[in-house]
Amino acid sequence: MFKKYNIIVVGGGHAGCEAAAAAANLGSSVLLVTMNMGTIAQMSCNPAMGGVAKGQIVREIDAMGGYSGIIADKTTIQFRMLNRSKGPAMWSPRTQNDRMRFAEEWRLQLEALPNVDMWQDTVREIIVKNGRAAGVVTSLGMSIESDAVVLTNGTFLNGIIHIGEKRFGGGRTGEKAATGLTEQLITLGFEAGRMKTGTPPRVDGRSLDYSKMEEQWGDSERGRFSFTDVPLPTEQRCCWITYTNEQVHETLKEGFEKSPMFTGRIKGLGPRYCPSIEDKINRFAERDRHQIFVEPEGWKTVEIYVNGFSTSLPEDVQQRALRQIPGFENAKMYRPGYAIEYDYFPPMQLDLTLETHRIKHLFFAGQINGTTGYEEAASQGLIAGINAHQRINDGHELILKRSESYIGVLIDDLVTKGTEEPYRMFTSRAEHRLLLRQDNADARLTPIAHKLGLVSDERLDRVKQKVEAADKLVAYMRDNAIGPDTLNPILHRVQSSPVTQKTRLFQILTRPQVGIYDLAMADTALADLINRSDREVVEQAEIKVKYDSYFEKEMEIVNKMRKMEDQEINPDFDYTALVSLSKEAREKLIKVKPRTLGQASRISGVSPSDISVLMIHMG
Amino acid sequence: MFKKYNIIVVGGGHAGCEAAAAAANLGSSVLLVTMNMGTIAQMSCNPAMGGVAKGQIVREIDAMGGYSGIIADKTTIQFRMLNRSKGPAMWSPRTQNDRMRFAEEWRLQLEALPNVDMWQDTVREIIVKNGRAAGVVTSLGMSIESDAVVLTNGTFLNGIIHIGEKRFGGGRTGEKAATGLTEQLITLGFEAGRMKTGTPPRVDGRSLDYSKMEEQWGDSERGRFSFTDVPLPTEQRCCWITYTNEQVHETLKEGFEKSPMFTGRIKGLGPRYCPSIEDKINRFAERDRHQIFVEPEGWKTVEIYVNGFSTSLPEDVQQRALRQIPGFENAKMYRPGYAIEYDYFPPMQLDLTLETHRIKHLFFAGQINGTTGYEEAASQGLIAGINAHQRINDGHELILKRSESYIGVLIDDLVTKGTEEPYRMFTSRAEHRLLLRQDNADARLTPIAHKLGLVSDERLDRVKQKVEAADKLVAYMRDNAIGPDTLNPILHRVQSSPVTQKTRLFQILTRPQVGIYDLAMADTALADLINRSDREVVEQAEIKVKYDSYFEKEMEIVNKMRKMEDQEINPDFDYTALVSLSKEAREKLIKVKPRTLGQASRISGVSPSDISVLMIHMG
Ligand SMILES: Cc1cc2nc3c(=O)[nH]c(=O)nc-3n(C[C@H](O)[C@H](O)[C@H](O)COP(=O)(O)OP(=O)(O)OC[C@H]3O[C@@H](n4cnc5c(N)ncnc54)[C@H](O)[C@@H]3O)c2cc1C
Ligand SMILES: Cc1cc2nc3c(=O)[nH]c(=O)nc-3n(C[C@H](O)[C@H](O)[C@H](O)COP(=O)(O)OP(=O)(O)OC[C@H]3O[C@@H](n4cnc5c(N)ncnc54)[C@H](O)[C@@H]3O)c2cc1C
Repeated sequence: MFKKYNIIVVGGGHAGCEAAAAAANLGSSVLLVTMNMGTIAQMSCNPAMGGVAKGQIVREIDAMGGYSGIIADKTTIQFRMLNRSKGPAMWSPRTQNDRMRFAEEWRLQLEALPNVDMWQDTVREIIVKNGRAAGVVTSLGMSIESDAVVLTNGTFLNGIIHIGEKRFGGGRTGEKAATGLTEQLITLGFEAGRMKTGTPPRVDGRSLDYSKMEEQWGDSERGRFSFTDVPLPTEQRCCWITYTNEQVHETLKEGFEKSPMFTGRIKGLGPRYCPSIEDKINRFAERDRHQIFVEPEGWKTVEIYVNGFSTSLPEDVQQRALRQIPGFENAKMYRPGYAIEYDYFPPMQLDLTLETHRIKHLFFAGQINGTTGYEEAASQGLIAGINAHQRINDGHELILKRSESYIGVLIDDLVTKGTEEPYRMFTSRAEHRLLLRQDNADARLTPIAHKLGLVSDERLDRVKQKVEAADKLVAYMRDNAIGPDTLNPILHRVQSSPVTQKTRLFQILTRPQVGIYDLAMADTALADLINRSDREVVEQAEIKVKYDSYFEKEMEIVNKMRKMEDQEINPDFDYTALVSLSKEAREKLIKVKPRTLGQASRISGVSPSDISVLMIHMG
Repeated sequence: MFKKYNIIVVGGGHAGCEAAAAAANLGSSVLLVTMNMGTIAQMSCNPAMGGVAKGQIVREIDAMGGYSGIIADKTTIQFRMLNRSKGPAMWSPRTQNDRMRFAEEWRLQLEALPNVDMWQDTVREIIVKNGRAAGVVTSLGMSIESDAVVLTNGTFLNGIIHIGEKRFGGGRTGEKAATGLTEQLITLGFEAGRMKTGTPPRVDGRSLDYSKMEEQWGDSERGRFSFTDVPLPTEQRCCWITYTNEQVHETLKEGFEKSPMFTGRIKGLGPRYCPSIEDKINRFAERDRHQIFVEPEGWKTVEIYVNGFSTSLPEDVQQRALRQIPGFENAKMYRPGYAIEYDYFPPMQLDLTLETHRIKHLFFAGQINGTTGYEEAASQGLIAGINAHQRINDGHELILKRSESYIGVLIDDLVTKGTEEPYRMFTSRAEHRLLLRQDNADARLTPIAHKLGLVSDERLDRVKQKVEAADKLVAYMRDNAIGPDTLNPILHRVQSSPVTQKTRLFQILTRPQVGIYDLAMADTALADLINRSDREVVEQAEIKVKYDSYFEKEMEIVNKMRKMEDQEINPDFDYTALVSLSKEAREKLIKVKPRTLGQASRISGVSPSDISVLMIHMG
């Protein structure tokens, strides 16, 4: 009944949408099979994108020609650049989004891609021919052929929802779970595990007393995720902050004996860094309050997301505790929080391309790989979509380096080290984070995407122009100096010590107290250059100057490690022949099949002496 | 955990939304419990409102202060007044709607009502105390108390979806079925039945060739459902018409042996007047083609609704047949059509207020009563919501008469005669349809709604003004005459025979060829009056004049029957004492508990002589 597709993407979540879009934009005919076309790109939990490290990922997705940033920008109800007070490597864009609009815009975006077809159905089996994925079989009994398959099932595989002592099957509240696939994959030799995550109750905003909370407005100078010109909504909505207190904690504790987590009914591990409120009061018993972010679910709706109050305690306990939070005295719930347990596939079974080792042309992306978060999922989808296309067209595979992107760090971590608890990105996971900033994601990645054919010449030119313009500004500041007479009054104003002789602008700007706009007051030519540049260019130039010495040091490290990172290993290399490897190293190397010496060195159980053995062998 | 509510409405479909809104607007505290807050007021089948007889119902709902008309107007992508060429009693407004927007606007409307709370959950039991409904128990195990309960479960009770030989539980595609309630109600003594309905496949509009179809545009002079000033979207979208042919039919027949309907796997009866395509080719074997309306699902989406092609044949048969329709040669399906079987409760178990006879303070509304269609459901919801409120406040019950509304006809038919197949409204069901027009729904019903407190003084004034203004126009035409000199040239133009003497405007306007605007050319005072009136007023005046004699005759009939219709019977009347009643009549009267002699006379099995017995007894 169906034609044969190049690529079938299973699941229309964040990973599936990016995978389908990327493969289609590269020229593959794509079929997106998803259980419910009404919930495409549904945000299962908080209506927000980005944040620390995650915001950088969204910028990277955008720089690569993905859509998560564009969709988030179009549906932003509040934008904030987090960590503005810290160095630019830490700056992290974050948006609150309109949940319904976000899903709608993704749906419309997919509809606008001529190579993407959609089919509403549940995949229960992968067709495997000669060790290769060759299509899917659905619940309606349809067999659909393809050259490659990307699985992005999220939290749906054998999903079980828990609230207090109650449990029922489901992939998300109100939606069915997906069965059959895990079982087949296990038969095929895959290893599956169990994880859990949770979500807070939703409440009726009309029942809250905002006068008891702190207002939290977005940045007045609006930023954005996308490097494109997608128009932003003009207004922003307010959020609020409030706090739990000891009564709240006491009330919650009354429910502990019925908690599915504390009583051991849920076996899977949950996300350490998005703990439930019961986890927080348990683990941080010394803290007498926790922050609660009160976030609207959209532009017009009164529905409120109670960020920070994720819980799977019995619903009456949830409600009683909630009502002891200032501003929530009369809170009406729309639905209780819950926890969900689902199957995942430990990601050491994957190559850095996200293809599975076991079955060729089969790719896994998103929460199915043990990650958590829309951004983590979306970025994997993008990479899996690209590599699925490249794979069936004998194109170059795309493996982003740890030194060039958070996405590279994410995937390298997953497939090299695996994960036993939901993996979330942090800046601390990236050893080269100084280089992996939100401001330069385009310079880092758009050329790569352009080479693949994912972004237009025009877009690449724009990036080049931005880089050149910033370099020009930097060069000007390197080449020109100003004397104490002009400079010292300004330095005095910003409380920086005076200079005694003519000093290069570049050098002055490295001082923490001095900004590029301060310098512009002292140098009309610089002011002129700045006035003719985009805000982003000026920001870029300033960052380049201010952190120049750090970047240089960082690049030295990257270059030193390059020898290892660039030393490729044939994934089919026969480690059994290398007798001097430790037993553990040999087993792990056979399992992970590292693509470079660098990757091999990061495998737990592979010691520096094992690496030496490998180095010597490879010459 | 919950406070006690005045009224709990179970189900957030069209019936549930109107019920919750009406009860809340009357002052009751309402809790709407629905399985999925993401699918409130979901249009399960075609993205359209109104049509023949149904359009009148939407106007009536609006005149009563309900919201279906307002929501439909806000989300209209195309408006057409059907039957314009027939008499005004037949004029029927119909809109194509944006499916997602429709659901969203209803959700926002409910959120805007301070008395409506919402809770996402599945009701599995009614709490009954002393023969009265006193709350509900949900799947999450919550007991929530209330003074009355309105059930509006639609197609969800033990819903089973069929596609070819496959079947699975579900209340709508991608949504779970609701279990438990039917079983409890049967234990309480209710009788339940089984019905079925179906829906066509959805296709990707990008895969259609519109050049092979006929365009169908909306009316250029846009009408609307609502008598309020809700602003309408300015643009309209095009629809298309195409036809099946004999090849299509032959292909479909290949699937008949796997048809769940023809093989007897589906037992419930389906809607006779919305037959599946396989039913159509079976029942109307002589017809070599059937019309297919190709309708966009919304403003921006490419998803297309294939109106007229409802089917539950195997999906490959659906696809092959579809592709033989002109314009559909390359059609890509998003999902197949399907049939759904569900429980309903034969409506003779209800009073005219929609309260059940068996359990007090328990009301049923919508598809659960054996009807089909959003409009039928919504109007029942409105009446049930009103009566639930009135009931618990000892207020007057609201029973609309057959002579004053389609809603009255609908409910009287249901509870007096019952229904064994899905009941849909037709103009032919209303014996007084000349009086029940879309143009005068406000004059008929807004005063009633105002008395209840459902519409504002201002709105009532507006209706009064409209009626008065129209009457003034009519009076002017009754009082003034024009001579042959002025009149005949106009009559000549419209090809109506000339007059020989001064003739009253009223009399001329009764001629079919003459319109009110023609007359205005002959009489400047009339022209002046018209120019100072709303379009609706002028239309109203014209209708009043043109159909005056018909209306008069109709009113005579209504008045004659009034004696019967106004003769109330105590619902607890003891028919066993009336020995001269036939056995069958006695049984039926005891079952239906008619509220008037008129209603009694419509019960099948109650003969004119039985009515005489009753009349005599009542004096
Ligand atoms: C209750 C809950 C709480 C969460 N809390 C957090 C949190 O606190 N912090 C955080 O960062 N992240 C959280 N998440 C995770 C976040 O929602 C996911 O990381 C993200 O949505 C994963 O994207 P995905 O594309 O991998 O999968 P999903 O968004 O889950 O999408 C999976 C898609 O695949 C479809 N599908 C599944 N199986 C099949 C099949 N067999 N056939 C066809 N279609 C199928 C589904 O219908 C769905 O459209 C939470 C998720 C849930 C459900
Ligand atoms: C496949 C299909 C095809 C159809 N085809 C046609 C057609 O061709 N022509 C036509 O006129 N009409 C058709 N209809 C009917 C039309 O959709 C209904 O008449 C209309 O939607 C009925 O409105 P309702 O409010 O009674 O129920 P629904 O719109 O079905 O809404 C019921 C609501 O109740 C909720 N619910 C159910 N049980 C529970 C529970 N136990 N607890 C909490 N919530 C609950 C559901 O989640 C849902 O929100 C079709 C319906 C379906 C499903």
